[in-house]
Amino acid sequence: FQRLYNSNFPGVRSQHSATASQGDKYTRPAVKTEIPGPKSKVRQYRPRAIMCNTGALSFFCDFEQSKGNYLVDADENVLLDCFQQISSLPLGYNNQELLDLCKNDHFQATLLNRPALGTFPGLGFPQLVEDSLLRVPPPGLNQVITMACGSCSNENAYKAIFMWYMKKKRGQEMPVLDDLAYETCMKNQVPGSPKLSILSFDGAFHGRTLGTLSTTHSKPIHKLDIPAFDWPIAPFPRLKYPLEVHESENAAEEARCLEIVEDLINEWNTKAPVAGIVIEPIQAEGGDNHASCEFFRKLRDIALKYDIAFQVDEVQTGMAITGKWWAHEHWGLETPPDIVSFAKKMFVGGFYFSDAIRWNMGYRIYNTWMGEPSKLHFLKKTIEIVNSQNLVNQAQLTGDYLMKGLKELESAYPALLNSSRGQGLFCATSISGDGARDKVSKDLLNQGVLVGSCGNESIRFRPSLLFSPAHVDIVLDKLNVALNNV
Amino acid sequence: FQRLYNSNFPGVRSQHSATASQGDKYTRPAVKTEIPGPKSKVRQYRPRAIMCNTGALSFFCDFEQSKGNYLVDADENVLLDCFQQISSLPLGYNNQELLDLCKNDHFQATLLNRPALGTFPGLGFPQLVEDSLLRVPPPGLNQVITMACGSCSNENAYKAIFMWYMKKKRGQEMPVLDDLAYETCMKNQVPGSPKLSILSFDGAFHGRTLGTLSTTHSKPIHKLDIPAFDWPIAPFPRLKYPLEVHESENAAEEARCLEIVEDLINEWNTKAPVAGIVIEPIQAEGGDNHASCEFFRKLRDIALKYDIAFQVDEVQTGMAITGKWWAHEHWGLETPPDIVSFAKKMFVGGFYFSDAIRWNMGYRIYNTWMGEPSKLHFLKKTIEIVNSQNLVNQAQLTGDYLMKGLKELESAYPALLNSSRGQGLFCATSISGDGARDKVSKDLLNQGVLVGSCGNESIRFRPSLLFSPAHVDIVLDKLNVALNNV
Repeated sequence: FQRLYNSNFPGVRSQHSATASQGDKYTRPAVKTEIPGPKSKVRQYRPRAIMCNTGALSFFCDFEQSKGNYLVDADENVLLDCFQQISSLPLGYNNQELLDLCKNDHFQATLLNRPALGTFPGLGFPQLVEDSLLRVPPPGLNQVITMACGSCSNENAYKAIFMWYMKKKRGQEMPVLDDLAYETCMKNQVPGSPKLSILSFDGAFHGRTLGTLSTTHSKPIHKLDIPAFDWPIAPFPRLKYPLEVHESENAAEEARCLEIVEDLINEWNTKAPVAGIVIEPIQAEGGDNHASCEFFRKLRDIALKYDIAFQVDEVQTGMAITGKWWAHEHWGLETPPDIVSFAKKMFVGGFYFSDAIRWNMGYRIYNTWMGEPSKLHFLKKTIEIVNSQNLVNQAQLTGDYLMKGLKELESAYPALLNSSRGQGLFCATSISGDGARDKVSKDLLNQGVLVGSCGNESIRFRPSLLFSPAHVDIVLDKLNVALNNV
Repeated sequence: FQRLYNSNFPGVRSQHSATASQGDKYTRPAVKTEIPGPKSKVRQYRPRAIMCNTGALSFFCDFEQSKGNYLVDADENVLLDCFQQISSLPLGYNNQELLDLCKNDHFQATLLNRPALGTFPGLGFPQLVEDSLLRVPPPGLNQVITMACGSCSNENAYKAIFMWYMKKKRGQEMPVLDDLAYETCMKNQVPGSPKLSILSFDGAFHGRTLGTLSTTHSKPIHKLDIPAFDWPIAPFPRLKYPLEVHESENAAEEARCLEIVEDLINEWNTKAPVAGIVIEPIQAEGGDNHASCEFFRKLRDIALKYDIAFQVDEVQTGMAITGKWWAHEHWGLETPPDIVSFAKKMFVGGFYFSDAIRWNMGYRIYNTWMGEPSKLHFLKKTIEIVNSQNLVNQAQLTGDYLMKGLKELESAYPALLNSSRGQGLFCATSISGDGARDKVSKDLLNQGVLVGSCGNESIRFRPSLLFSPAHVDIVLDKLNVALNNV
């Protein structure tokens, strides 16, 4: 295997490396112990305090020593972090401008006096929303609401869809006075609590609360033993990669899935009509599954045809990582989605929505905290940084460079590595063979490169937006070693 | 009506007033404009930026000018805040020790580098949990997990209950390999997604996400148009106040409700067995409805009799406001609850649970953020303050003083004011007559006293733990004026 990616990145490369150096304190990974190391292990076995998650716990972090793309663990191992707290830190660790913001008196007052945001917002809040969330709305969506996490964002988006659907059905915002709906809803009974559904896809992940979990179909560990709504589930296209090589069979697979979507809408019409469709632009937790832009355009058309809502869940794909601010901007939709939900790198959860979805009564969609306005200060500053440093474009270029390298590694390890796929920096690759993925993943970690895993045999890259070709070189180098070790 | 409450508070009074003065910058309300004033109104009508909540919006706040028990609004009105952001600020506004904490480097690193807490916690996290949440566990509960808001806390508590129930039923943590449960849960079908239920009460409020909303029965505006699980709903006792005067009829009412609880458990056994009971110690949103300690003890016994979980939702009652850290400590339970959920004044959501409820597989209960560790720094400091200033006891004494004053007002306005009820500072009173409650509430606001409302005719007091007899005097004085004006 010949490493080529050190010398042939397009002209912007040196600029990108400089950007990365500004953010980073470290220039390369440095591993002192096995990971998790002794200090992580000591902490792991403290009683009670790990909140029942020892099974999910990787290691403990020293956040004060971490910087930019490099995460330092409790044992002083310096790791190039390509996972960024499950894709939730857009600018890596301890960004200086965000740290400076933490020292600001106004920021601290916003943080400490956390309001009941829907009822007693701070006087600067409308402008703050304009300067943050409304700087980057998905095309065509003018409305926005915040929530505390991704699951709550999708739960409330579904509620907005149900409310919109019923408003449409009865031709007015609320039922007439004395309608049976008022009384029955208090008892969870029809017609006040209608039998409606959200159509989701095999392999989807939209959250773990009871409503969103009914649309999540990634792994049994997430769902087992939890009651669920009986809602329709369509197959998500199982495409062959590289997409450009398998165009016609992939198109057939997508057509099959779309046909089933329509069948399900018709089938559910008699038991729990489909009020909305929810989909991720790239199924993340489910295995980094892609579909073509045409698939999504046709799906949007189906929603229009049946007059049901079309929600794009951009909790993981949002905020520039795919090379556009919102991943669905790649699709070239003629009609925008009705709802786009977000969380993770946006610092706060919530969703954008169309004027048609907008509800007009207070307390219909509500929560004591409704997210947290201090997070919008982080978002506002981050948007400024992303724009001024052209990081959306950098995500695309660096992602292309990573994909090129992954495909070269595929050629070198054809029996092992396959199906490299990505959009911008949102990349994944699959490693075949029993336990091979976990072995490579662990080997990478012990070489100082932290990646995520998804599906049964994929590793996923969710680096910060400051990830540069220099970081890609390190990753590919270590991955080459890890593949060689299998 | 003779005001008596200015001169007869027990001996600790001057001490309490001094405490309040330390926290407050203002000594009395000062109202310059009608509320909401012109500056609140200007902001209210900015397009898009109020997040669809104009119907729930009261006014805009100037948090930087607010201090202790006094909230300053956008029009520079100084309000004595007896609602504290829907009961979510334990020490009022801009507490100096918490502000100092915001300036601390370690705090800022914890805040900015928000981790995926279940997988990559900070190295100080176990100790931080010990020093905050595990300093104040409900008696008998050793385990704790954090979540981002109250709704998510209850959603995940219900999941823990379902998992515990199924573990019990099959006699082991997970189904055997190849069990049908693994495959069916991915499709939302039995046996993997079992038909189980949570029993809740009329008038309850446990959240607004689809699972918790199925246990919320406060107002139609919360529930209308949203699909719900068909779960059993028992009547919550409708008691007559004062409780000590109506003992025998109240006891009969409670016996009636408990009998229906058992009937429902038996009835649901064939369609969706009850895995747990959830109840608030005082129904808050539903109208500040109390029940006797004996009622709760008997309810706990019923849960034991049928071997189902008993969850106490202390999202609003928790953290000292009732005169004990947890309201259910008043009950004298022989067997602790299985789960106690919290949020609001605890700064972060989550729930405590028993060793029996504890699950042992990673990712069973999980979320990317799982709350936020920086909030535990606020909690840790607040616990220190509450303990060193003896604020739990102060909540009891000041609450007793408030109740005494409310009952004196009842005597002065017998046709108007009734059913004053409370536990510590967690107090409410009812105002009879069409629209009278809203009129009094608005009058109080325009005199500079902010209270909450609940149910159809109640106002509720949810002041900070620094609320003192001197503040009570102001409230009673203004309430007297408002009642006079009706």
